[in-house]
Amino acid sequence: MQLSHRIETLTPGGADGWEVFVKSKALIAEGVAVTELTIGEHDIRTDPTILGAMDASARGGRTGYAEVPGIGVLRDKVAARITERTGVATGRDNVLITPGGQAGLFAAHCAVCDPGDAALFIDPYYVTYPGTLRAVGARPVSILTRAETGFLPSEAAILDAVTPDAKSLLINSPNNPTGAIYGRETLEEIGRACDEAGLWLISDEVYDTQVWDGTHLSPRALPGMAERTLVIGSMSKSHAMTGSRCGWIVGPDHAIARLISLATHTTYGVPGFVQEAALFALDQGSELEERIAAPFRRRRALAQRILAGQNTLRMLPPQGAMYVMLDVRATGLSGDAFADALLEAERIAVMPGESFGQAAAGHIRVAMTIEDEAFAEALERLCGFAAGLAAAKAS
Amino acid sequence: MQLSHRIETLTPGGADGWEVFVKSKALIAEGVAVTELTIGEHDIRTDPTILGAMDASARGGRTGYAEVPGIGVLRDKVAARITERTGVATGRDNVLITPGGQAGLFAAHCAVCDPGDAALFIDPYYVTYPGTLRAVGARPVSILTRAETGFLPSEAAILDAVTPDAKSLLINSPNNPTGAIYGRETLEEIGRACDEAGLWLISDEVYDTQVWDGTHLSPRALPGMAERTLVIGSMSKSHAMTGSRCGWIVGPDHAIARLISLATHTTYGVPGFVQEAALFALDQGSELEERIAAPFRRRRALAQRILAGQNTLRMLPPQGAMYVMLDVRATGLSGDAFADALLEAERIAVMPGESFGQAAAGHIRVAMTIEDEAFAEALERLCGFAAGLAAAKAS
Ligand SMILES: Cc1ncc(COP(=O)(O)O)c(C=O)c1O
Ligand SMILES: Cc1ncc(COP(=O)(O)O)c(C=O)c1O
Repeated sequence: MQLSHRIETLTPGGADGWEVFVKSKALIAEGVAVTELTIGEHDIRTDPTILGAMDASARGGRTGYAEVPGIGVLRDKVAARITERTGVATGRDNVLITPGGQAGLFAAHCAVCDPGDAALFIDPYYVTYPGTLRAVGARPVSILTRAETGFLPSEAAILDAVTPDAKSLLINSPNNPTGAIYGRETLEEIGRACDEAGLWLISDEVYDTQVWDGTHLSPRALPGMAERTLVIGSMSKSHAMTGSRCGWIVGPDHAIARLISLATHTTYGVPGFVQEAALFALDQGSELEERIAAPFRRRRALAQRILAGQNTLRMLPPQGAMYVMLDVRATGLSGDAFADALLEAERIAVMPGESFGQAAAGHIRVAMTIEDEAFAEALERLCGFAAGLAAAKAS
Repeated sequence: MQLSHRIETLTPGGADGWEVFVKSKALIAEGVAVTELTIGEHDIRTDPTILGAMDASARGGRTGYAEVPGIGVLRDKVAARITERTGVATGRDNVLITPGGQAGLFAAHCAVCDPGDAALFIDPYYVTYPGTLRAVGARPVSILTRAETGFLPSEAAILDAVTPDAKSLLINSPNNPTGAIYGRETLEEIGRACDEAGLWLISDEVYDTQVWDGTHLSPRALPGMAERTLVIGSMSKSHAMTGSRCGWIVGPDHAIARLISLATHTTYGVPGFVQEAALFALDQGSELEERIAAPFRRRRALAQRILAGQNTLRMLPPQGAMYVMLDVRATGLSGDAFADALLEAERIAVMPGESFGQAAAGHIRVAMTIEDEAFAEALERLCGFAAGLAAAKAS
């Protein structure tokens, strides 16, 4: 029996940049010791106090269908958080609770794109982006950025990519994989482009608490932008709650009203006990968020120190998120080839930049998601390996 | 800013059969005592032993991203359950764990319908069905059934509705709202129609443990049907776990492989601790399922006794699920008007048949989801009210 064209073409066949990841998993399964630096997830678990709140909620009776838009107190809490961070008045009616940021990305694009419409996104990108756009039936259109300009998109590049059927632009700051944070100027360029081209802006801000340099600014905060922006948030990265599947979409109330109706038909809400756990976690305030971000902040400093001691690899200053991007072109290898050789020789697994699009070719992404000492040691070995390649190339 | 056509047209404007429901909620909010017989959810909570398993799982460390297809042990358990019930060999690769049955319905239709395709379903229907089909971009096509033939669809009626762009037929047995259970003969007719028209069969079996009369038969069990059937299951009704959002799709492995890729882009899996709780619940076997079904079995017997003592309302023998359908036409009122009058006069809220499509016009759906004594008392009053209307009409 034939499946839909939509689902058959969701992910392209052939090489997809996950070969190193798959190979590393296979080695680990065989019992080989591999240092895993591919994973976008904390090396700590969800805090026991949060799990305690979840258990108390469930045992307190929160086991029936929860309100599809999300429980009122959590919607209020998220609204207050967004108001505080953007200065734009945000209320319960601007918030839909979703089962994770990924579900928010999917739903937001459903809300603004019809099948066949063009949906723009920035390259390099988080791996699920093109598939998410295809899943809603949209045509993914990438906008290339360049390492040389910090992987920041320009107004001109966005407008170049716009076609009459373009409906949305998806951005992500702090960025996975590049670590870039979009400053006011970049966001203003983006805002002008969206305004000129009549685009919705979908702003993936799931790393908004992992900021090492500068501050996080949401485009919702810019004049006139709240009306055309859908913000995607999540408890996953900020509160080490990846497995809880709890996030949100914040946007204009008329859009949220329609998104609630969509949620009725796609997910039928998020477990009430998970939402009460999320509420508890958010109620802990910035102290908990900083505690969860702290290991990445430390490891970023470690990476900076280690990288300063060599001159083969160029590190893009990671301003946020849990990754560092390294330019490996001085070794003469592509990101793919470097990652493959590194796994073979050193049993260290990293993601080749090519798995995040074209713009990050010749780079690798190193996740800072293992314990400090092991992280530093792996990075030292990685640098040594690169230096060896560069020396061999030079001779 | 303009939203997508898809989301703007997801739910039709105007009267939608939920007026009584909304009115009853408003009355309750005002402090008026209303007997609520509209709700498709148990009057008990999730069993504390299941919540204990969930807590143990979370505290044991199951708080990170779970495998997108579902954790292996749960996929195996569901596969074993389906094998046992259908006699068709079912393995892990035939199972995708979803965040609830509703998410399964949505995903299954995404997998078989492209935008613009026709998706068939049976009227009367569970309220989310037409919106779910619209959400995937399909054109909902209803197939009317008749109270006189137990709301069972016939091969001819299905084939009548088929157009060249028809891709799927959605059925639901045990049925919400009618309580009908599709026997072998009906399922064979359905199977022949699907075969002749080249349709996928999407079989919503979320009430498969609530069977009062006869036995539940899955179309996956019929010769040749496993290849064209996607079964939707859920922990919601069988284990009083509505709020946990955990269900599954069972189907051919090539379809499940694609559905896993879709899930990567729409939900990114189900919390691991919820899945381990579901596994624990399924491991309790039929004893727990029977305990959860028992109140509805008792109340159905109560309803039969009470209805036998009057002759205004005709009860469709409910063979399964947690509802009874009553034909109110002898009162001279539509289902809508009856439900509205009943709420006004007796402060009893029921769903008008019209909210489940055209075929159930002139009926009401009474949920058996309140405690026995209150249920019996409400039903007595409901019958008395109907008799009064009929007498007034006759005089
Ligand atoms: C940029 C980005 N957006 C969204 C997500 C999805 O996060 P979640 O669905 O866990 O909230 C991720 C996860 O890695 C991510 O890196
Ligand atoms: C017929 C039918 N299918 C599916 C569902 C969805 O169940 P869930 O999403 O809770 O698994 C329901 C819920 O009422 C239902 O009645």
